[in-house]
Amino acid sequence: MVRVGVQADLPEELLEFFPRNGIELVRLPKDLREAVEVEFWVLPFNRVEAEGQMPFVQGVKVMQSAMAGVDWVLPWRRDGIILCDGRGIHDVSTSEWVMTAILASMKWLPVYAKAQEERKWVGDWKLRNPFVTEQTHTRGRYRVLSEELWGRTVLIVGYGSIGAATEEKLKVFGVKNVLRVARSARKEPVEVHAIGDLDALLPQADVVVLLLPLTAETQGMFGRERLERLREGALLVNAARGPIVVTEDLTAVLAEGKIRAALDVTDPEPLPEGHPLWSAPNCLITPHIAGLTPNFMERAFGFIGKQMERYLNREPLENIVGDAGY
Amino acid sequence: MVRVGVQADLPEELLEFFPRNGIELVRLPKDLREAVEVEFWVLPFNRVEAEGQMPFVQGVKVMQSAMAGVDWVLPWRRDGIILCDGRGIHDVSTSEWVMTAILASMKWLPVYAKAQEERKWVGDWKLRNPFVTEQTHTRGRYRVLSEELWGRTVLIVGYGSIGAATEEKLKVFGVKNVLRVARSARKEPVEVHAIGDLDALLPQADVVVLLLPLTAETQGMFGRERLERLREGALLVNAARGPIVVTEDLTAVLAEGKIRAALDVTDPEPLPEGHPLWSAPNCLITPHIAGLTPNFMERAFGFIGKQMERYLNREPLENIVGDAGY
Repeated sequence: MVRVGVQADLPEELLEFFPRNGIELVRLPKDLREAVEVEFWVLPFNRVEAEGQMPFVQGVKVMQSAMAGVDWVLPWRRDGIILCDGRGIHDVSTSEWVMTAILASMKWLPVYAKAQEERKWVGDWKLRNPFVTEQTHTRGRYRVLSEELWGRTVLIVGYGSIGAATEEKLKVFGVKNVLRVARSARKEPVEVHAIGDLDALLPQADVVVLLLPLTAETQGMFGRERLERLREGALLVNAARGPIVVTEDLTAVLAEGKIRAALDVTDPEPLPEGHPLWSAPNCLITPHIAGLTPNFMERAFGFIGKQMERYLNREPLENIVGDAGY
Repeated sequence: MVRVGVQADLPEELLEFFPRNGIELVRLPKDLREAVEVEFWVLPFNRVEAEGQMPFVQGVKVMQSAMAGVDWVLPWRRDGIILCDGRGIHDVSTSEWVMTAILASMKWLPVYAKAQEERKWVGDWKLRNPFVTEQTHTRGRYRVLSEELWGRTVLIVGYGSIGAATEEKLKVFGVKNVLRVARSARKEPVEVHAIGDLDALLPQADVVVLLLPLTAETQGMFGRERLERLREGALLVNAARGPIVVTEDLTAVLAEGKIRAALDVTDPEPLPEGHPLWSAPNCLITPHIAGLTPNFMERAFGFIGKQMERYLNREPLENIVGDAGY
């Protein structure tokens, strides 16, 4: 019997993905305060809750997270414990959020949402988008009231399985070019540039999508210098982790009207009520919603169930997190 | 020499798409008040302006509109005048708007836009989406904060070239099913149901996209009875013409919290400032922006230029509008 630790209130419908035999479920209450023996630990989604339980869960051989980024677990990982992440199970939900963020920005939805709130039909363009120069704003007398993703160049920084899922969707929209960056360069199955090429690639992109893990190398990677390499009017999309971008620098560059942003993650998170990023111009913020869809839950526990089966059958586990942190 | 009527202030960059020889440009001022002879008339995008010019433009053999829907030109068409529309040139821009509208609704962007306006990180879900039932809203303790397009069923009503372009994009998002309706049924290259099947198909769809031309048959097609056939929480997307939906009925059904809507067109249009549709719940409104992208202008005048060449070479014109109105 393998003792499997799960949240006390995990719903029955998600337990159906777990193996029928060979496991003993150990329900871990939110406020766990006494030592419990668990061999295979399914971490709670909530970081604060997981961290509260860390000191009390003992005898762990496998820590399985459903998150794509496990930066926050690393300090807790002890020698001999295998940490597995949720690589792959976020592809659909996160790539959908990225596409939503890009398209919403291209169609100026935040501007029109404000116009709707004010009950104004802005056909006469009272609300002006600062990125539409006089040249693009009108063609002769013809008003331009939205932009297209078609024909744009998109740079994906941190190209992994979510990046590939995003690219598949971008392609059908007729983007001109997808540029890819990861820690190390590769040529197959598609060309991926090494992180050293990032600065040269940034000025080529209309849209820059961050899908990097948060590590010592990526923390603060997008400070003022890099943000200023972006094209005027370029869109920075952060679907990764807040601290990869220097919030103060992003807020300043946005205030200067140089670029736009769409963020599902911020630093700090949650973003406090008085924080200047809330009101930075041309910035769309959603409160870390990308992963939390009903279908994601099923995908996550389907994967976790299969990992348990692999563990019971002494087969190699998938998604083992290496020393690099992903 | 064929006398080609165009707006007086059509920019030079768009004239470059016109034939170099064989045409004589006739610049028509916005406030045209005297008779002008024009053989090939490129209609202004603005309906009011076009209608104002109608009585004064004479000797017309071809009226070329860049719009996909030319319902408003039909009363002006006289015997012997060929009317051509913009079929095909709207595929990219309109299918992009449709995808944006669907995804923005699935990711609850209007809700999060409001939260951002109030500077609130709604991770604790103060702003509740009425379509997320207790069952889908949480999975055990796991909050659901957005939905997916993946796995949904989408019904396209008025399946033509924009519909096909939309379907191509929907497919890569992993929708479960695309259902198609047009005036008459066909089997090739894909199955399209006849309009008579509409009522039976409506309850099967999570998303219903209207791409119909406005004709005597389609005006008021979506009144209370049809709107009530939609699934609870279904999304109605209107990228066609406002009067296809009965505004009063839509406003009422939205107020009852049964469905949601995303509209780029309304009836009346522009929607007046005090109109109740502005504040109907779960309704995203953009002010007829889908077509007005910079790239659309180039696509439109590229097509119009080719039509002129065909006319000069006595080749058959494309996009001739038949008696049905499209």
